[in-house]
Amino acid sequence: MKRTAIGIDFGGTTVKSAVIDDGTVVARAAPLQTQDFVGPEVLLPAIRATLDLLREAHPEVSAIGAGVPGMIDSINGRVHQLSNVPGWEEVALRALLEEWTGLPAAIDNDANAMAYAEWLFGAGRAGVNVVCLTLGTGVGGGLILDRKLYRGSWLGAGEIGQMTIDPNGVPGRYGNFGSLEKYVGNAQIAQRAELLYRAAGLTKTLEECSPLALEFSAKGGDIIALQIWEEIGFAIGITLCDIVWLLNPDRIVIGGGVGRAGELIFGPIRRVLTERTMKIFHENLTIVPAMLDNDGGMIGSAALALEKRDALAD
Amino acid sequence: MKRTAIGIDFGGTTVKSAVIDDGTVVARAAPLQTQDFVGPEVLLPAIRATLDLLREAHPEVSAIGAGVPGMIDSINGRVHQLSNVPGWEEVALRALLEEWTGLPAAIDNDANAMAYAEWLFGAGRAGVNVVCLTLGTGVGGGLILDRKLYRGSWLGAGEIGQMTIDPNGVPGRYGNFGSLEKYVGNAQIAQRAELLYRAAGLTKTLEECSPLALEFSAKGGDIIALQIWEEIGFAIGITLCDIVWLLNPDRIVIGGGVGRAGELIFGPIRRVLTERTMKIFHENLTIVPAMLDNDGGMIGSAALALEKRDALAD
Repeated sequence: MKRTAIGIDFGGTTVKSAVIDDGTVVARAAPLQTQDFVGPEVLLPAIRATLDLLREAHPEVSAIGAGVPGMIDSINGRVHQLSNVPGWEEVALRALLEEWTGLPAAIDNDANAMAYAEWLFGAGRAGVNVVCLTLGTGVGGGLILDRKLYRGSWLGAGEIGQMTIDPNGVPGRYGNFGSLEKYVGNAQIAQRAELLYRAAGLTKTLEECSPLALEFSAKGGDIIALQIWEEIGFAIGITLCDIVWLLNPDRIVIGGGVGRAGELIFGPIRRVLTERTMKIFHENLTIVPAMLDNDGGMIGSAALALEKRDALAD
Repeated sequence: MKRTAIGIDFGGTTVKSAVIDDGTVVARAAPLQTQDFVGPEVLLPAIRATLDLLREAHPEVSAIGAGVPGMIDSINGRVHQLSNVPGWEEVALRALLEEWTGLPAAIDNDANAMAYAEWLFGAGRAGVNVVCLTLGTGVGGGLILDRKLYRGSWLGAGEIGQMTIDPNGVPGRYGNFGSLEKYVGNAQIAQRAELLYRAAGLTKTLEECSPLALEFSAKGGDIIALQIWEEIGFAIGITLCDIVWLLNPDRIVIGGGVGRAGELIFGPIRRVLTERTMKIFHENLTIVPAMLDNDGGMIGSAALALEKRDALAD
């Protein structure tokens, strides 16, 4: 059977769609800016129009998948709530996709979709137990355990960004205190950098403290930027230590903006894991950057949709 | 086929063996005190003699299982190292058990055996994703994920006691800093209690600060003992929060001496989880004391041995 599906990736700022053929993007639709389509009643028709365009060019499409940030009921195909996007509550997204297209559809958490894509086609390939971490505005994760996407009892598993770094730290957006996201989310990194620069008598705007700017500064030898990356790597390393002691994975994939900083964070992360776990846990553990970049969510969603289609066909 | 097997539980102070019939103990051998049999060259013949006695009384025994604390290669049947017991390094325990008895044998980590027993026959029954925590001299754990014992990539999974409470805390026995075991292991609890009593002008020996003594004191209204249990519950709660965000389990089973303190720790643990995780993660989560008490290790080992026997028969 044809392995072609449409993958949709609901981001905080854009909704991207593409036709995916067995893990490869073969056609991209123009991304929809969420600020131009506020609320499901305007965004959903725009998505429908996008799907129509993609299917006209690629009639071989046989399933539709969507990766969505927030609390998703992947079994019943409902979006409980979208992270960072108001107005999206209790949307039966899967039923809509199926009604519009007459094709089988699947929806899942965006970090799960990304993890699934990296495991099938990217940096997690051939892993048995793979932990995927995505770093950006929010910090998310997905788990492949015993060669299957692990979703947990109420489909909430993989919330790595909500795990604790400091039990006495500041409250996070979902209720925990001192969680990883509060140390390595893009906004938190910028605030911390701005503070350290200010303490050193330097004035920088928050925009000048983005992960990309800090990467550039650190590679140019900026001591404060280097310290920031050490701190970020340490915090991520501490959380990954806990995951390694608990799950003993063979592979960890790190994606998103911060993940692209390369050895600036991979160095400190590996050091923390080597110092703080037993040899049997870290000596054969592979820690690698994500390979599919921003396409992971679409590729994974398409793959999950094909899996759903095949399960229905059985 | 008969569901009768011998289960062996290697503890820090005793080695216990019993004949187990489908989860029920039907005959117990006299426990062997490890201090009377120092080193494998004296303990192993004693275990062999115990097995002979049990099999004489119960010739229907069809498999042998052993739960062992420490780093165990359950696939190759080797004990890499025994926790807290010197002289046990690289012992091919499974091959010995099979050679002595002519029966199929299985060895596994003791916390895995306990978790498996609680899931099949005890407090974890009918759970889909079950986290088991055992509290004692050491703090261990075992995971049932998607209705299977989860062992990790190099059979090291479930080391809940090594997960971090405070990244800047004291070093633990396997390399991590500020790990849960350093807060809620029996010795650490006694030291902390002794300190708090001393600060209040009261002299207590470490023996007078055992979990059982502190339970008794707290139930009698002793403020310091109550504070200790709050602290223990908080530390366990913080670690369980991280596990809940990561794995979204439906059931948590807590066993061992500290686990028997009942609401003294279950109260604070539930409070921390309710405060620090989202409703969807905690509202249907069941947190219960282990049911099989000290027999869990033997019952689980026997069950794992029968599973091994059945796999060989297929």
